[in-house]
Amino acid sequence: MKRRVFFVSDRTGITVETLGQSLLTQFPETDFVSRTLPFLTNQLAAQSAADIIRLAREEDGIPPLVFSTLTDPVTQHIIAESNEHVFDLFGTFIEPLEEALGQESSHTAGRMHGIGDAMAYEKRLSALNFSLNHDDGLSTRTLHDADVVLIGVSRCGKTPTCLYLAMHYSLKAGNYPLTDDDFGQNRLPDVLKGSRHKLYGLTIVPEQLSRIRHERRPQGNYSTIAQCRSEIAKAEAMFRTENIEYLDTTTVSIEEIAATIVRDKRFR
Amino acid sequence: MKRRVFFVSDRTGITVETLGQSLLTQFPETDFVSRTLPFLTNQLAAQSAADIIRLAREEDGIPPLVFSTLTDPVTQHIIAESNEHVFDLFGTFIEPLEEALGQESSHTAGRMHGIGDAMAYEKRLSALNFSLNHDDGLSTRTLHDADVVLIGVSRCGKTPTCLYLAMHYSLKAGNYPLTDDDFGQNRLPDVLKGSRHKLYGLTIVPEQLSRIRHERRPQGNYSTIAQCRSEIAKAEAMFRTENIEYLDTTTVSIEEIAATIVRDKRFR
Repeated sequence: MKRRVFFVSDRTGITVETLGQSLLTQFPETDFVSRTLPFLTNQLAAQSAADIIRLAREEDGIPPLVFSTLTDPVTQHIIAESNEHVFDLFGTFIEPLEEALGQESSHTAGRMHGIGDAMAYEKRLSALNFSLNHDDGLSTRTLHDADVVLIGVSRCGKTPTCLYLAMHYSLKAGNYPLTDDDFGQNRLPDVLKGSRHKLYGLTIVPEQLSRIRHERRPQGNYSTIAQCRSEIAKAEAMFRTENIEYLDTTTVSIEEIAATIVRDKRFR
Repeated sequence: MKRRVFFVSDRTGITVETLGQSLLTQFPETDFVSRTLPFLTNQLAAQSAADIIRLAREEDGIPPLVFSTLTDPVTQHIIAESNEHVFDLFGTFIEPLEEALGQESSHTAGRMHGIGDAMAYEKRLSALNFSLNHDDGLSTRTLHDADVVLIGVSRCGKTPTCLYLAMHYSLKAGNYPLTDDDFGQNRLPDVLKGSRHKLYGLTIVPEQLSRIRHERRPQGNYSTIAQCRSEIAKAEAMFRTENIEYLDTTTVSIEEIAATIVRDKRFR
């Protein structure tokens, strides 16, 4: 039987899911089935959530695991009473933080994934629009506006990484696909020359690239292993000649690629 | 002076940033300046991070706040020794979880934002490709493949929400922009009729819509308050007539819109 898990939150539940799921990966022997109960903004909503948790406990004959980031002590208490295993991811740290800062906390509902700071939110949306509108190729003018420009062969992971960089880090991320046209002189394409400091290279192993391309366009030269190998060799040679930092994305998630770029480019 | 904050992690740092920033929003009186130290996968990396933290402490004359999701007890110990305020967001819960589950944890590096389950990761990337390729309009065939289809007037938040639904929840999210052409009969456009159960409406207040549209295209009818008011009234009338759930996105972040849709459509 799968062990039931509940994530409860007064807002989206994204924070509690993130840390909760991360903790659960430390117990690979157990199969978990999780459900998020978000937007528990009042006692009535918390009561219904508590009823759902109690019912699961009765049905399974074993207490579920409950992770909570509720900020209101009253709703948190309602949840805490519903089950023996309630992990209060938020409240646990509030008191020590109050001590460290010598301040009382405001006990307002979690605002991590709200609009919060309106200017920061606009910056993020405009970064996302930038990345959407500058996918696969850039003009000199738009390069000027970009925070970072990913370069690499077609289908090596540029687009999803750009979107993540925009969505999560509010960076205007453009990308430029390197094709056979660019490999003539083993030098940077002219359009990129003035923006060397913004460039970051992505690469991938040829077998994986061939597989990904094959799903998209099985016919023709595009997805053959020979073509993939040739393009990748030329792209990596260019990165080395031009001294451009680059990363192999083969076994790396878009979050990991993005976090690596942010670290290497010192955005944070 | 701003209070310095460090987020330390053996992987991307995204989990520790998420909960850490969320906790800090409870202390609005203090200005924080944060830095993430990700990928601390060995003792040497942890030592350099500890040195950075010690230096900040000396420079500021006050200990920074350090949030950690390090899973390895040795590297965590190195960080814990560097400063008095180290909040161990991960280790704090591992022991109680071990007790609750009657199992030892695996103490492997956080895998929350890695590729992890390869099939789940592929599903997520293909959802993202779907949402990118089916932005602004859908054919009957692609509607068949979508998990959810957002409908609403131009610039009410459909595209960023679709991308977030794909990126975070691995949902194939399409969208269909409602325009004056669709409002003739106050009924669903024909292409959407077979997929009523997948539809979710977005709306926005006219003043905000006019402002957003004005940034994009200041000339012409498109961004006038009269045009925005008229389109929104007709879209909302259609949602009500056709009994389609809808959400006002005016003061709501894309995470909140996405989490609301996921809850209302019972995806989780």
